[in-house]
Amino acid sequence: MADKEDLDAIVAQVAAEMRPHLGEGKVADYIPALARVDPRQFGIAVVTSDGAVASAGDAETPFSVQSVSKVFTLTLAINRLDEALWTRVGREPSGSRFNSIVQLEQEKGVPRNPFINAGALVVTDAVLAGARPAEAIADIAGFMRRLALDETVAIDAEVAASEQDTGFRNASLANFLRAFDNLNSPVEEVLEVYFNQCALSMNCRQLARAGLFLAHGGLDPLNRIQVTSPERTRRINAIMMTCGHYDASGEFAYRVGLPGKSGVGGGILAIAPRRAAIAVWSPGLCEAGNSLVGALALRRFVALTGWSVF
Amino acid sequence: MADKEDLDAIVAQVAAEMRPHLGEGKVADYIPALARVDPRQFGIAVVTSDGAVASAGDAETPFSVQSVSKVFTLTLAINRLDEALWTRVGREPSGSRFNSIVQLEQEKGVPRNPFINAGALVVTDAVLAGARPAEAIADIAGFMRRLALDETVAIDAEVAASEQDTGFRNASLANFLRAFDNLNSPVEEVLEVYFNQCALSMNCRQLARAGLFLAHGGLDPLNRIQVTSPERTRRINAIMMTCGHYDASGEFAYRVGLPGKSGVGGGILAIAPRRAAIAVWSPGLCEAGNSLVGALALRRFVALTGWSVF
Amino acid sequence: MADKEDLDAIVAQVAAEMRPHLGEGKVADYIPALARVDPRQFGIAVVTSDGAVASAGDAETPFSVQSVSKVFTLTLAINRLDEALWTRVGREPSGSRFNSIVQLEQEKGVPRNPFINAGALVVTDAVLAGARPAEAIADIAGFMRRLALDETVAIDAEVAASEQDTGFRNASLANFLRAFDNLNSPVEEVLEVYFNQCALSMNCRQLARAGLFLAHGGLDPLNRIQVTSPERTRRINAIMMTCGHYDASGEFAYRVGLPGKSGVGGGILAIAPRRAAIAVWSPGLCEAGNSLVGALALRRFVALTGWSVF
Amino acid sequence: MADKEDLDAIVAQVAAEMRPHLGEGKVADYIPALARVDPRQFGIAVVTSDGAVASAGDAETPFSVQSVSKVFTLTLAINRLDEALWTRVGREPSGSRFNSIVQLEQEKGVPRNPFINAGALVVTDAVLAGARPAEAIADIAGFMRRLALDETVAIDAEVAASEQDTGFRNASLANFLRAFDNLNSPVEEVLEVYFNQCALSMNCRQLARAGLFLAHGGLDPLNRIQVTSPERTRRINAIMMTCGHYDASGEFAYRVGLPGKSGVGGGILAIAPRRAAIAVWSPGLCEAGNSLVGALALRRFVALTGWSVF
Repeated sequence: MADKEDLDAIVAQVAAEMRPHLGEGKVADYIPALARVDPRQFGIAVVTSDGAVASAGDAETPFSVQSVSKVFTLTLAINRLDEALWTRVGREPSGSRFNSIVQLEQEKGVPRNPFINAGALVVTDAVLAGARPAEAIADIAGFMRRLALDETVAIDAEVAASEQDTGFRNASLANFLRAFDNLNSPVEEVLEVYFNQCALSMNCRQLARAGLFLAHGGLDPLNRIQVTSPERTRRINAIMMTCGHYDASGEFAYRVGLPGKSGVGGGILAIAPRRAAIAVWSPGLCEAGNSLVGALALRRFVALTGWSVF
Repeated sequence: MADKEDLDAIVAQVAAEMRPHLGEGKVADYIPALARVDPRQFGIAVVTSDGAVASAGDAETPFSVQSVSKVFTLTLAINRLDEALWTRVGREPSGSRFNSIVQLEQEKGVPRNPFINAGALVVTDAVLAGARPAEAIADIAGFMRRLALDETVAIDAEVAASEQDTGFRNASLANFLRAFDNLNSPVEEVLEVYFNQCALSMNCRQLARAGLFLAHGGLDPLNRIQVTSPERTRRINAIMMTCGHYDASGEFAYRVGLPGKSGVGGGILAIAPRRAAIAVWSPGLCEAGNSLVGALALRRFVALTGWSVF
Repeated sequence: MADKEDLDAIVAQVAAEMRPHLGEGKVADYIPALARVDPRQFGIAVVTSDGAVASAGDAETPFSVQSVSKVFTLTLAINRLDEALWTRVGREPSGSRFNSIVQLEQEKGVPRNPFINAGALVVTDAVLAGARPAEAIADIAGFMRRLALDETVAIDAEVAASEQDTGFRNASLANFLRAFDNLNSPVEEVLEVYFNQCALSMNCRQLARAGLFLAHGGLDPLNRIQVTSPERTRRINAIMMTCGHYDASGEFAYRVGLPGKSGVGGGILAIAPRRAAIAVWSPGLCEAGNSLVGALALRRFVALTGWSVF
Repeated sequence: MADKEDLDAIVAQVAAEMRPHLGEGKVADYIPALARVDPRQFGIAVVTSDGAVASAGDAETPFSVQSVSKVFTLTLAINRLDEALWTRVGREPSGSRFNSIVQLEQEKGVPRNPFINAGALVVTDAVLAGARPAEAIADIAGFMRRLALDETVAIDAEVAASEQDTGFRNASLANFLRAFDNLNSPVEEVLEVYFNQCALSMNCRQLARAGLFLAHGGLDPLNRIQVTSPERTRRINAIMMTCGHYDASGEFAYRVGLPGKSGVGGGILAIAPRRAAIAVWSPGLCEAGNSLVGALALRRFVALTGWSVF
């Protein structure tokens, strides 16, 4: 493994290389709170097994994690339901856009995987598990704080409210799932929890720290908590690798070669098994909805460290 | 045209021929109020240009008109928006089930025609036109009463409430349309009006009477009111012919050879241009969701009268 | 019914009204023989029950009938297989483009209707029925000659050869059907017959004459031959009404209100039940692949005669 | 890395553990030559960077490699066309069955990835590159012999002929691609080469040996030939990981955690980057078309070696 000085230098080099690209891509504009983020920002943070942190750029600036949260609610749902979860959601790439409803009809209400929106709604319903939305939201936020070892992780109420106001496509998916009896809680409650989990506000350092257990068979190596089992960890990583970047997952697997999950807020969490968790953030998105500069930074980072799994 | 005695005899013969078939098919069971209807009922009523009524069987028993209502809300919407309506909904057969969402995604929120559920929701939104749901519901009910010349036509509140409770698929469609900006009123309001229009309770005689204007170029020949223009009437009849029986419209065109519209309550309204309007009712449905005995009765009626347009 | 002088006048008026539109639309250009047709041509011919012919414009100029031939091979196939045909091909509108393969996969090799390409290939296979292609081609040409009462009807060998050279989409459909065991003859033989039937060269007068039996319950009123049964005639007319213009069938039903079938050569055959058969031709196509001026002419013709079935 | 004795023991243990499972799954039966293979066979061979071979079971029995050949023709095509290949075929999971034509229509003739049949046909066309089929077939066979360091690798002529006789679905795909101008050579020639490459007959030892370059950045570590570049090697491995097992690729990524490619002959080639290439074979297939016992064996092998990339 690269030692701390090496990592610091690599991370600094990546940040420097990204500078000419800042502002590339298109910031998500479906809600005002996301649309007004300055696109010329970039952060990167790497947390290794021994707790060392290497970071550069805007690594301390909080951003809306959006779909990156799906990795963590999936962890909670697998812990709760184990194999029973997979009767409700599949584990294969979808070959469709993240909010497509076509496949859902053809496959009778069982979403393709937990990272497309329909699948994430089922996962959220599994986390909610009949509790009140406020409790589930508090559970998720608490889980993130413990993993990030940082009590300042919070949900951005403005973002959550905006998502609720404009989330017709997600409301459509949720009602569709309910029509197939694949949601147990009321549609509005599932959506409330979902929109709040997406509105989690974290910075790169916190996000990398929170994902570290995925690099170590489910064991958080710093606070020695077994977050989930090694087998479930492999499952989550495999789904990140094959489905983590929507309809550009194959491209990410090639360019970066690590399990990863992106969000329309511009964040990406990537896992280097047995080595480290890496979080990058830059708001401009490529056509497939993934951070353009973030993916580029990860590509350079992996080229410099040789951490691709391939 | 057949004279009154002939029609009486034909209608009586059709009713007699249906007796051995009563109870065939499967009663719609997605809401309790529909599920508990006695399947062994059958009614037929024919209203001719001169106001003569020939009826037989349970022609005076009210039933839930369900999707037959779509013919009348379409009339209201065309009168209101004219050609502008067709930027929001197509006029072609869908080749899909009535509640399919697949095509809606592929065609970016513009439903194939006004008789599949998604299209009917757009039509309802056009009728609602920003008014309050209660007003729109009153308007629709009033329109039906005027056309049926019968003040007893009413909405079955229990049916409307049940539809609302279980209508997740329609809620999914409505949210989907809203996501494509193809609904102007709030989703809940459109659904409220839609579920109420479907819950209209009418008998065969009233329904045939209400549809008579479609057999006469939009002019109600009895009360001499021009309900809609001749051109729009042709449009509505053409859509009934090509799209009126969901994914069995081609079969109905062959077996019956008249423009028609069915509902899952077991009713069918058929139009014999320049001659008469015919309503049949029998609760048992075929696999495509149309009244099995009702379609059979129309087939026989047309064979005996020679009124097929082909 | 309009008398002969009236019809002559109407047909002349329609032709005059079309003059400013000549050249509109886009001539089919996928094979050279079609691409070089002068787009500024228009013909119309009406043949009534008593054998009277009213025609105007280029009604004597032969053109490539293309998909209009499907009406006649369907007649032959129904006569041969009767109801058994419908286990191999459906009778419902497709809601898709004429050469779509998507629905074919979803419905396991049973095409939606006999007028989309896949369905027409199954119909051709039913006509071929294990014979040699040359015999089947001769049978079809002979059938057309008898119906047209004109021995000069022939197949354009250059067109047939060109279709064969470029017909990869049809070859794809045919192989797909064969993979589902829905072709009995070898793929190449079915394609050979299909491309030849499409290459039939006829003029408006011949085409209208050939279609006359469809206006009279299957009985050719001039030579008193029962071409097919009344029931099968209704079936064919119903399919023409709901599926005869590909994905613009609903529009044709409204604008014209008659069963009709179009071809990419620019021809349309329309049936006015109990009255007449009408053929129009003009090479420019609308986006859906139907003769633009031809459809306009039929619309005017029906407006002037009042022959719409609606 | 595990040393040679360890590997021998692990491979022997895996073979022993598979014994109770022999015969599970369903042998491919679409051609006689495949259908009559004894299902109770199992072989495994591992070839490491230093050329050590560990094998067990029927590792010397030749079998039909079928779709595993796609990894090698992809290598040839990338070497020939470089980035230009990706204008003709995508690199994302398809979310559909291996022989689906639906996506191909929606995406206008550009197959989702090189491992579904449509994509493999484009790759074969790129390898053929206008040459005569016999030459291309000889090239492919020669490439496999060089990689396997074994002149006995050959094409099973009976299998190739059978594929040709029954390959209507592939002929449909090829014609479809041609209709979109995405094949340069004649359809029949592309199919001939494709069916022959699928009919390559190899044993586990040969197959693992042939794939070794994929574990070492494109450099065959034994004969020191740079088969392809490191970047292209990462590309191939990424596609194997995300698309190598059709619609069960996500499951394979989880269960095995290595890039892999399966064939309906029952073979699977898996790559342990920087370590070894592994080939397993057992004819019984799971529902998704992958070797059931072969995948189980790889799962156990990875569990015992800890070679999962996750």
